Amino acid sequence: MILNKLVLLKFHFITSSKDPVGGYMFGIDLDRKSQVSLKRQIYQKLKDDILSGRVASGESLPSTRELAKFLAVSRNTVCEAYEMLLAEGFVLSNQGAATRVTEGLNIPKTFTEPLNNTLKNNYNVIADFRTGQPDLRNFPMFVWNRILYAAIQEMPLVELGYRAPEGLESLREEISSWLFRSRGIKADPQDIFITTGATNALHLISEMLYKEGKYILIEDPCHMGMLRALTNKGYPVSPVPVDKHGILSKHVHKKTAWGIYVTPSHQFPLGGILPAARRAELIQYVRENEIYIIEDDYDSEFRYCGEPIAPLYSMDPQRVIYVGTFSKVIFPALRVGYVILPHQLKRQWKHHRTHTDVQNSPYEQAALAKFLKHRKIDRHLLKMKKLYGERRKVLLQALGESFKDTWYSWGDATGLHIAIEFPGMCFDNEFLEKCKINGILLKSVDYHSINKGKHMDKLLLGYSHLEPEEIRRGVLVLYDFLKNYM
Amino acid sequence: MILNKLVLLKFHFITSSKDPVGGYMFGIDLDRKSQVSLKRQIYQKLKDDILSGRVASGESLPSTRELAKFLAVSRNTVCEAYEMLLAEGFVLSNQGAATRVTEGLNIPKTFTEPLNNTLKNNYNVIADFRTGQPDLRNFPMFVWNRILYAAIQEMPLVELGYRAPEGLESLREEISSWLFRSRGIKADPQDIFITTGATNALHLISEMLYKEGKYILIEDPCHMGMLRALTNKGYPVSPVPVDKHGILSKHVHKKTAWGIYVTPSHQFPLGGILPAARRAELIQYVRENEIYIIEDDYDSEFRYCGEPIAPLYSMDPQRVIYVGTFSKVIFPALRVGYVILPHQLKRQWKHHRTHTDVQNSPYEQAALAKFLKHRKIDRHLLKMKKLYGERRKVLLQALGESFKDTWYSWGDATGLHIAIEFPGMCFDNEFLEKCKINGILLKSVDYHSINKGKHMDKLLLGYSHLEPEEIRRGVLVLYDFLKNYM
Repeated sequence: MILNKLVLLKFHFITSSKDPVGGYMFGIDLDRKSQVSLKRQIYQKLKDDILSGRVASGESLPSTRELAKFLAVSRNTVCEAYEMLLAEGFVLSNQGAATRVTEGLNIPKTFTEPLNNTLKNNYNVIADFRTGQPDLRNFPMFVWNRILYAAIQEMPLVELGYRAPEGLESLREEISSWLFRSRGIKADPQDIFITTGATNALHLISEMLYKEGKYILIEDPCHMGMLRALTNKGYPVSPVPVDKHGILSKHVHKKTAWGIYVTPSHQFPLGGILPAARRAELIQYVRENEIYIIEDDYDSEFRYCGEPIAPLYSMDPQRVIYVGTFSKVIFPALRVGYVILPHQLKRQWKHHRTHTDVQNSPYEQAALAKFLKHRKIDRHLLKMKKLYGERRKVLLQALGESFKDTWYSWGDATGLHIAIEFPGMCFDNEFLEKCKINGILLKSVDYHSINKGKHMDKLLLGYSHLEPEEIRRGVLVLYDFLKNYM
Repeated sequence: MILNKLVLLKFHFITSSKDPVGGYMFGIDLDRKSQVSLKRQIYQKLKDDILSGRVASGESLPSTRELAKFLAVSRNTVCEAYEMLLAEGFVLSNQGAATRVTEGLNIPKTFTEPLNNTLKNNYNVIADFRTGQPDLRNFPMFVWNRILYAAIQEMPLVELGYRAPEGLESLREEISSWLFRSRGIKADPQDIFITTGATNALHLISEMLYKEGKYILIEDPCHMGMLRALTNKGYPVSPVPVDKHGILSKHVHKKTAWGIYVTPSHQFPLGGILPAARRAELIQYVRENEIYIIEDDYDSEFRYCGEPIAPLYSMDPQRVIYVGTFSKVIFPALRVGYVILPHQLKRQWKHHRTHTDVQNSPYEQAALAKFLKHRKIDRHLLKMKKLYGERRKVLLQALGESFKDTWYSWGDATGLHIAIEFPGMCFDNEFLEKCKINGILLKSVDYHSINKGKHMDKLLLGYSHLEPEEIRRGVLVLYDFLKNYM
């Protein structure tokens, strides 16, 4: 990448600055040829400066007009960057006052860091609100198959033998550049290890890191499937409560842990975006204890307003294992996912992968690499985001029409489902069983809870695999059924 | 299947019979339209009768001429059936005397039984004797790719979603019928579970069956990779010594075990065929202790003389987990294998598979099902058996020419490698390291031993991936290097 413009800024902060001379040298290198948008570059630099302490807690950022002028960009660009910081809790904004840096965010970068800134059932289904079901009918099958044929035809003979457990080189490179252009994540292809999906990744991580008698800290509620992948051998779990923003990081200090499993971009199932202060607290905690955060960015691809959330990984690539999967983006049966690993874990990972299931099959990997390389994924995601966003709206509208004001939705506008609270209701196992018998497939938040009883009034409604008409019909069926309970 | 001829035999045994009237009703139903050869049908029936006690220990079988006449088959057919029984130790034969049933083989069938009878290195490689490397250059890539394209084109949309952990239905059916026609194994497709290879199978089995403080009994020497797959989490191992016939079953009683891992058709790495008496002893032991035999039939496809060996599985499908893989038959990167599971383990298996890596990818499964269905696998195996058999001969001949009479080979003429003993030699780690530096890739039997020091004089020479010329050159290189030690 060529840096074609170096902008050095000098300006005075509006409120008290810790700089003794009352000013602050503020360097932003805007690369106007980069695939990363200008707003993301500004956001990234500001965030780094906040986290590293170069901009102190409580300090104000320059006004958007001021910064736009210095950087020679539109004011809108700066506004959007500020909104991203605001959404993630790095800054606070009050009407009329300056945008200020949130307290307690400074976590000095470690020196070792190598990166710069980084249904099946027997009932007749009449309403199917299962979560995590991408719409396969809209997958570009013709394009995918054409790419897959080409990958097969070009497959070198050597790739059909025993290969390295880290995965196909070209795929690791393409994932690296896709993560960069879509989420601003800088990950060396050599740190990316291919898996057969997120479950496989979590299973291997727990095989690798679990230590006798130590706990895995996990959000409660959380995805039960992922919980089982991490604790399948009966490893002990210590649940950490979740509020509407995500994991309550102040509760993580209780137990001796080997790791923390979190979904910070879009908490499963409640949908919160983890605020920056809590992110910093988690990073601080794992550093002090020399353990790891397992960050599952399971569906951050589908964010319907604003930019994708920056992962915890970028805050400390040596203490965060980033887990990604293509199950929701391509299709579930693909069985290709990845982890981004801290350097010190790579050798151990290779050993465990080799003696667990050796490696991935070559064809899916090669085809996916091409699908990424030719930007088919970007196009597909754009289309699906629009489609899922519309379906989400249809669902919310239909709920409003049937249930009036007896409910409200949780979480950020992201993903393939919504958590809906019906205050005063109690969705227990018996209720779910009755739903099933009546042809309504859904899960409650309580189903995905470790400590039962705290989220009895919330249902999870998946909408991604349903046409608007199916959603509307489903909501009517649900209303007919639920009104007996209300 | 239609039974088109029922032959009832009555004949007198030559030696003392336990039948009070000195005769024995002996029923063999020959199905002349079956895909199973007549000799295999005869062999199967006799073996069943031996194991069930219908023919007692020490009793003689009818003469081959006699039986051939009664069955209206060629005498050669009966001879071949007897030779199969002989090779596996079910009967004993002395020149001139009658063929007699080996002592101690009777294990009554259980009633619950559902089936009837069921390198990478930085050195310049000049001689590559690695084991377990199929010859990819002779794989029918054109045929395979054509089949794979068709499988992709025909893939139903539903197969791209989350599917059952047991694998593709059509593949389970085709494996069942292939096992029957090639090895006489009767396995219900519903008992066959697809895996991503043998390593994945062993990993899941140990996840599923390991019990705190209990041991896995394992042949010593054994394949180190498979040992690690079974014990990766530090589970304790109890090694059982192996002689030229395989595991010394009398040693299995020592420890409290959760399972026994064996390679009875072709012991890895020494190559023995486990005699029937020891097979019976193993079955007896796991029945008494209500544990399982894990039978790895890893390369029994490549047997260069005689018929494939009948697996332990057929002796007790409720106490044996049969593990098979297509890594050596198709190609290693395919990542498709299977287990045949006892009924009582199926539910647990599905749970563990779901929370370990969910399922296999669909394309390889569908293509493999077609490859089996259209008998492409039979044709390919026939070709490769011939090819590998020739290479084996070339290796033995080349060893004779270079090393004269300073060595001898171990094991049955099966598989992709031979264990060669050089009496008086000591192939330790330092030796292997020196080999590597000198561009010779090989492993010793000691490398694959748990208790070191007992097989210091044996090397493992893989030949399957080498052209005759490469084998001859490799042996010359090896001789040049080894003569310094002799």
